[in-house]
Amino acid sequence: MIYFDNSATTKPYKEVLDSFVTVSSQFFGNPSSLHSLGGQAEKLLSQAREQVGQLLHVKAGEIFFTSGGTESNNLAVKGAALSSRNRGKHLITSSVEHPSIRLAMEQLEQEGFDITYVPVDEKGRVSVADVEEAIRKDTILISIMLVNNEVGTIQPIREIGEMLKKHPTILFHVDGIQGIGKVPFCLNEDRIDLCSLSGHKFHGLKGTGILYIRDGVRITPLFSGGNQERKIRSGTENVAGAVALAKALRMTLTKGEKGIESIRKIQNLLRKELYKNEFIQINTPVDHAAPHILNFSLKGIKSEVFVHALEEKKVFVSTTSACSSKKKSASSTLIAMGVPEAIAETAIRISLSFDNTLEEAIEVIKAIEGTVKQLERVMK
Amino acid sequence: MIYFDNSATTKPYKEVLDSFVTVSSQFFGNPSSLHSLGGQAEKLLSQAREQVGQLLHVKAGEIFFTSGGTESNNLAVKGAALSSRNRGKHLITSSVEHPSIRLAMEQLEQEGFDITYVPVDEKGRVSVADVEEAIRKDTILISIMLVNNEVGTIQPIREIGEMLKKHPTILFHVDGIQGIGKVPFCLNEDRIDLCSLSGHKFHGLKGTGILYIRDGVRITPLFSGGNQERKIRSGTENVAGAVALAKALRMTLTKGEKGIESIRKIQNLLRKELYKNEFIQINTPVDHAAPHILNFSLKGIKSEVFVHALEEKKVFVSTTSACSSKKKSASSTLIAMGVPEAIAETAIRISLSFDNTLEEAIEVIKAIEGTVKQLERVMK
Ligand SMILES: Cc1ncc(COP(=O)(O)O)c(C=O)c1O
Ligand SMILES: Cc1ncc(COP(=O)(O)O)c(C=O)c1O
Repeated sequence: MIYFDNSATTKPYKEVLDSFVTVSSQFFGNPSSLHSLGGQAEKLLSQAREQVGQLLHVKAGEIFFTSGGTESNNLAVKGAALSSRNRGKHLITSSVEHPSIRLAMEQLEQEGFDITYVPVDEKGRVSVADVEEAIRKDTILISIMLVNNEVGTIQPIREIGEMLKKHPTILFHVDGIQGIGKVPFCLNEDRIDLCSLSGHKFHGLKGTGILYIRDGVRITPLFSGGNQERKIRSGTENVAGAVALAKALRMTLTKGEKGIESIRKIQNLLRKELYKNEFIQINTPVDHAAPHILNFSLKGIKSEVFVHALEEKKVFVSTTSACSSKKKSASSTLIAMGVPEAIAETAIRISLSFDNTLEEAIEVIKAIEGTVKQLERVMK
Repeated sequence: MIYFDNSATTKPYKEVLDSFVTVSSQFFGNPSSLHSLGGQAEKLLSQAREQVGQLLHVKAGEIFFTSGGTESNNLAVKGAALSSRNRGKHLITSSVEHPSIRLAMEQLEQEGFDITYVPVDEKGRVSVADVEEAIRKDTILISIMLVNNEVGTIQPIREIGEMLKKHPTILFHVDGIQGIGKVPFCLNEDRIDLCSLSGHKFHGLKGTGILYIRDGVRITPLFSGGNQERKIRSGTENVAGAVALAKALRMTLTKGEKGIESIRKIQNLLRKELYKNEFIQINTPVDHAAPHILNFSLKGIKSEVFVHALEEKKVFVSTTSACSSKKKSASSTLIAMGVPEAIAETAIRISLSFDNTLEEAIEVIKAIEGTVKQLERVMK
């Protein structure tokens, strides 16, 4: 089996799962309990928070544990909008965000907020000038993703952050879920106020996530209750999940430049070989692309058909994002990039993890070429 | 070690943790993925949903997986309020709810909703007549807990449900988190529209929960995104957590009447023996009390002091609820019951699980009596 669908989800590292089991079974106390079983759990939780803070070069107190990327995105966007609505009701985002941002924005629109969707160019990238132009007196929040989950385009986060230094009251949220570990970025230097991460995208566990909230930034909680996570996210803490997430993040970031280079090599090989095939059009841009995603279209073959054909060769890839894969709709990112519907409907996404190898890529290329040959008659 | 703090959290069953590990490591696909790894994960998720539905005698489609009790409560109360606000803005709850209900209500109050807090009697119980009297033309939601987490009082859920049959448009939410498995109740017969459960309270894992939503009831989601959980709760599903939760629920409900009887026996023994002690006042009522909670006060000794003193004898109990234990405030339930502040400030909560034994209870009684003797000088 070759798993090339790591942007949908990753296999948890064994060490990550081991940590989860140890904490769940041996340190099962409620961190809010006064006795030592509670104290132990609380200590593990704050160690996990410290570790994540160190790994991201921010303060532990700026790390908030959540149940995943979708929660982090909703909490960031809705929480910021609700807490700042007396200052203005205008929000800016891009036209290629994940549904957890896009639909959160739409929900806010129904609550009387005004949303500007900044378009992207043919590479799937917003321009800093467009973002700046969209800013109004009543703009309170800008939310832009670090790496697009469908094609892998890297957004100019640093440049937007730089530009926003002129606009100190506007909150800047970055959906870093697809980028973390693969694309360098810096929470404090890039003037980021809020940033979402999701454990299961980097070999952590499903149901675990992080929201970074810069010191001094105030957002309204979505869950009220026992005032855990410094009142921002009530609910008995998933201590074992947080410890597991910290471990997964450490293991991921330890791969560093070398790890990134190795997946870039695999991506380059895939790109070079697939490019040669007359039926294949590569949708992921050459520059400003994350190293782990390669999106291409197979003119004339519906994505589902191709995914299932590859699966018979034990190769697992995706029709664009996992979320929209069952809706059978064309990739919204490709449409926003101006790709014709017929191409967008036939898009396939390969997404790599640090565990994938060049040997696997060579096999996948063979499998793709074989499948193309099988389906050639249909395509012509 | 004797763990008598099971209302704060429970130790996960070994089988539960084993299931979590198996699913996380072997069936790690994203349920939304089109390929068979996604299909396997989706199948496990829907099996877990079926199983929970069967155990609770409701349809699988009425079960929604969440990240815990606090999320379920917030989603139920806020989701129902937001979806029904065009019909009215009045909500009814009791004065002894968990903070995840009380503070959610307070947040809604700031959004223009009007809340009636029905008082409780000296046993911590609301009266059906009071609830009925609180109903107005614009009442859209009533939220009452099944079992109070601080003293164990059972609320008249069945009777409120019965009364509400005259008010078909009012949604009825039950926080069943402390009651499930310990106090019989019936989701469909009791005219319950929404019901919250939390995995870690019945030997499941932290970070897992359920919201039951009766067919036809519409609530507004708190998380928008990939439209998982039939659009009510977006976010990549914690499949392993859901499977683990279903297993914990099955194992818990299998204990049945016999299990309940055995913890009732332990509670009775504790009550009988502690009652004899002149310094101890029992706060949990004799009737309408869940079998697993016993709350008592030790006149003159601050709860923290007593918790720590017992801990030295390796007995783990709680100062009322875990959530408020570090705020060092008096139990809000006891205050609502009309218990004097001096007694409320010295309250201790014992809470049992099916794994506790009479032998443990005998040891705990000894430990309590010994500690009382040590502290006697202070109390007099
Ligand atoms: C860019 C991006 N944002 C948000 C999410 C949602 O995160 P989660 O799956 O943890 O809910 C995903 C993945 O599904 C994603 O790729
Ligand atoms: C009655 C009641 N409701 C809600 C909750 C919150 O559930 P969770 O701890 O899963 O967030 C608890 C426990 O903390 C509780 O006892």
